Amino acid sequence: MSTSQTKYPKFLDADFEKDISGRITPRDGPIVLRNPHIDDLAEDVLYHLDLSDKKNDLPAMFGDVKFVCFGGSPKRMEKFAHFMVKELNINIQAGMTLSNISHGSDRYVLYKVGPVLSVSHGMGIPSMSIVFHEVLKLLYHACCKDVKLFRLGTSGGLGLEPGTVVITDAAVDGLLRPYMEVATLGMLLQHPAFLDRDLCEELQAIGSADTSYNTVIGKTMCTYDFYEGQARLDGAFCDFTVEDKLAFLKRIHDRGVLNIEMESLCFAAMAHRAAVKSAIICCTIVDRLQSDQISASHEMLEDWQGRCQQIVAKYIRRHLNIQ
Amino acid sequence: MSTSQTKYPKFLDADFEKDISGRITPRDGPIVLRNPHIDDLAEDVLYHLDLSDKKNDLPAMFGDVKFVCFGGSPKRMEKFAHFMVKELNINIQAGMTLSNISHGSDRYVLYKVGPVLSVSHGMGIPSMSIVFHEVLKLLYHACCKDVKLFRLGTSGGLGLEPGTVVITDAAVDGLLRPYMEVATLGMLLQHPAFLDRDLCEELQAIGSADTSYNTVIGKTMCTYDFYEGQARLDGAFCDFTVEDKLAFLKRIHDRGVLNIEMESLCFAAMAHRAAVKSAIICCTIVDRLQSDQISASHEMLEDWQGRCQQIVAKYIRRHLNIQ
Repeated sequence: MSTSQTKYPKFLDADFEKDISGRITPRDGPIVLRNPHIDDLAEDVLYHLDLSDKKNDLPAMFGDVKFVCFGGSPKRMEKFAHFMVKELNINIQAGMTLSNISHGSDRYVLYKVGPVLSVSHGMGIPSMSIVFHEVLKLLYHACCKDVKLFRLGTSGGLGLEPGTVVITDAAVDGLLRPYMEVATLGMLLQHPAFLDRDLCEELQAIGSADTSYNTVIGKTMCTYDFYEGQARLDGAFCDFTVEDKLAFLKRIHDRGVLNIEMESLCFAAMAHRAAVKSAIICCTIVDRLQSDQISASHEMLEDWQGRCQQIVAKYIRRHLNIQ
Repeated sequence: MSTSQTKYPKFLDADFEKDISGRITPRDGPIVLRNPHIDDLAEDVLYHLDLSDKKNDLPAMFGDVKFVCFGGSPKRMEKFAHFMVKELNINIQAGMTLSNISHGSDRYVLYKVGPVLSVSHGMGIPSMSIVFHEVLKLLYHACCKDVKLFRLGTSGGLGLEPGTVVITDAAVDGLLRPYMEVATLGMLLQHPAFLDRDLCEELQAIGSADTSYNTVIGKTMCTYDFYEGQARLDGAFCDFTVEDKLAFLKRIHDRGVLNIEMESLCFAAMAHRAAVKSAIICCTIVDRLQSDQISASHEMLEDWQGRCQQIVAKYIRRHLNIQ
């Protein structure tokens, strides 16, 4: 590491202060890492993906990747990968099937279907953060270009019929702050969480073609806690009343928050910091102005989650010119 | 919920301010929920565990539980459950095996071996928080008594030989603050993260009987990010030098931090808030003063993780009077 001693990043966060005003726009082109130390590593072990830039030929394995789709649940992302096989008319030889590339790690699943990666991120910002760091390094080592990132998720809606699809134009934390704070070497650094407006609108147009449900664009609140953090009365702890809860949810709804989940702030902040075009598309599975608990049937939940998958699949087909 | 309108918790957090001084000590006895609304719910769906207090007879299923062991990886917690079958001399009928009670959820695994639950918590505070809320409600609905909670984990050590076992006496965040902050209805509430000193010392005594490795008690830093948050130079982003990194790690080491991981603050804060006796026992898998990357072999990692499992198993056997 001695060679790193005088190395500073190509971009310091100071240069990125203008992010706060959203003036840095995500771009196409090669993936750039804002870390000058990576190229000095004898080996870069992507520990939680069970991959390495020395043990694996990452350019050969992943060089053609153009779309990375993240979702919380490993089973759901495995199903999404099989769904994309059909959507992209991928021909899988007899006796073959998709294999979880990260099976050695037990932390995340990683499937590749042509130019599409399907990755699980687990629940919450830290779990999303680990896999995002490693996927970004994977795309860098593989020399990928013109990559777009999607998070497909579930969320609690505000004043929306369950099953509504929400596309996030900005993520905010539990105090409505539009950035992710990362305690870094004793400083609380703030990373703004903006998303690509054009991508939002293109996805909304695709979703709106299906009139059996609504597809809307709005603010997403991202919390570190599913119960108290989302004003639920049904956690193991609660020191507020139903009136306190409803007053809070109405207050954030009045300020443009359409849904609440647990990863958008990290996904948006890291994608923006890496200047990669990305979008967050979540179905709502409960109206939090009506209820805390998720009572929809398993079949209903599957159907709602399928809506986000179909919208992203249509987007990918269009950009690959697949009829 | 109208019956909740005037309900306030049996304990308000205000009463618990004295937690800050650690004066509230965890106690044996029945699990108490600091949430007056739970008893008003027509049904309490433990969504991420795929259980419900109406659809499942929780007292019959879980009433005898005395020890809950949490760990990050689902596969590891499945292996731990099978390990406890042997340790507790549990007789499993021919043709039977352990079954993941939460298999319907795909978020966490939950195994029961006599009075022991083996639960995965995923990675990071939010993922730990969700399962902790729901396990605590499970223990409450099941009328469990005298329960002890353990987190068995892996961590990066500071100045310790990899394979050392660290038992946490206090958890701190990335700024050395000994509490977890939860944004709750627009307020940042602070929940102190203390652990039971007697339990720490009993576990250390058990670990110290094996002189092939060291078992130490100390402070654990809990971060929201694995890379920058833990002063690693090998993430997708890095704007500090190797000297900055080492200066920070030495500074926190000088203040008593022995290891760094991603769940202890939440586990300690929620267990303390619930006044349940609990302990955090992690092996170190890398010395962060020497390296960022985890290069130990799979076999070595398995061996190190087995140390924590054996210590907790010996503790449980002792308290169940199993020779």
